[in-house]
Amino acid sequence: MTSFDAAFQHTLAELFAWRRDVRRFRTDPVDEALLRRCLDLAAFSPSVGNSQPWRFVRVSDPERRAGVVASFERCNADAAATYEAERRDAYVRLKLAGLREAPVHLAVFCDESTEAGHGLGRATMPEMLRYSVVTAVQTFWLAARAHGLGVGWVSILEPEAVCGIIGVSCDWHLVAYLCVGFPVEEHADPELVRHGWQERLGAGGMPLIER
Amino acid sequence: MTSFDAAFQHTLAELFAWRRDVRRFRTDPVDEALLRRCLDLAAFSPSVGNSQPWRFVRVSDPERRAGVVASFERCNADAAATYEAERRDAYVRLKLAGLREAPVHLAVFCDESTEAGHGLGRATMPEMLRYSVVTAVQTFWLAARAHGLGVGWVSILEPEAVCGIIGVSCDWHLVAYLCVGFPVEEHADPELVRHGWQERLGAGGMPLIER
Repeated sequence: MTSFDAAFQHTLAELFAWRRDVRRFRTDPVDEALLRRCLDLAAFSPSVGNSQPWRFVRVSDPERRAGVVASFERCNADAAATYEAERRDAYVRLKLAGLREAPVHLAVFCDESTEAGHGLGRATMPEMLRYSVVTAVQTFWLAARAHGLGVGWVSILEPEAVCGIIGVSCDWHLVAYLCVGFPVEEHADPELVRHGWQERLGAGGMPLIER
Repeated sequence: MTSFDAAFQHTLAELFAWRRDVRRFRTDPVDEALLRRCLDLAAFSPSVGNSQPWRFVRVSDPERRAGVVASFERCNADAAATYEAERRDAYVRLKLAGLREAPVHLAVFCDESTEAGHGLGRATMPEMLRYSVVTAVQTFWLAARAHGLGVGWVSILEPEAVCGIIGVSCDWHLVAYLCVGFPVEEHADPELVRHGWQERLGAGGMPLIER
């Protein structure tokens, strides 16, 4: 039986607190072994029925990357147009992705056709398959930060267009598009807090509702 | 800038490897401060637009808990009936939830009506709000395991019925139902591997597809 001591618990809390959604990357490459190490750790994530439906795709081809950037720019312009006045000014000042600079792009898919897991645990909640991929993203994110790497999750994209740009099976559903690289700067507070977009809720800790 | 040393990285990998979906719990209570500590750590999870849409509900009322158990038993019987022959025998031998024994039940919802985050990042991928709740579940799970607590995610439930049993707003969508308590036993391999339901994939590490 493995137990974890107070020093580890303390540093783990630091890791949770310092994990950031990074949008400002250095352009220097990420060591291949380091990237593989973080991906291997993500494979220890929970998945429904042990289905392990996560599929990680590294997008390196310049045309494909440019296609993803173009999708982001379309969606971001559309999103900006939905805000008014000061909120719109605030939106356009935000840097919401580091797609151009990040040395590594990872598109993370859910293989909806997988037979692994034999359907266990997802008859009444079929969304569990995609949720399993999300847990792998969060595990990868924490592993990356522990090794000095920054990750940014870009969701201002057209998911079906991105599948086409990347060229994967129609059975694969895009769950996350991640920028990965070394961060230019590090902060303990989220960028959206620092720039006044959205404060942390419940400063006294996580509310627990009783039933 | 906070960095993490090799010793921490090593123990973090142990934590990922030893996090289990627990179904066999001791019935002794969980210290309130310990539970709160793990929930507070989950509040450091990423969320789209910093929307923090997770809502944790502790289900303690015996009638409500019994209603959840009944939902599980209905769904589990229905699921068993979908398998044939040996696979069915294997299914019915699995212990898929520890709802009766676990001292703490946490229902985790996504508040779909939240204005926090001002819609940022979810115009084209509205599922990002629920995905944000999933990252909080995974963070809670890791924090709990680091403090000796076991967590089991039960998805063999009727999510809308469970909302009614627990009595929360219709704007809240059930993402996860968690059993929490001290585990009876601990294993480095998943229960579904140990009982021959589903092996780990990619023994050589996480596959990385290139595009």
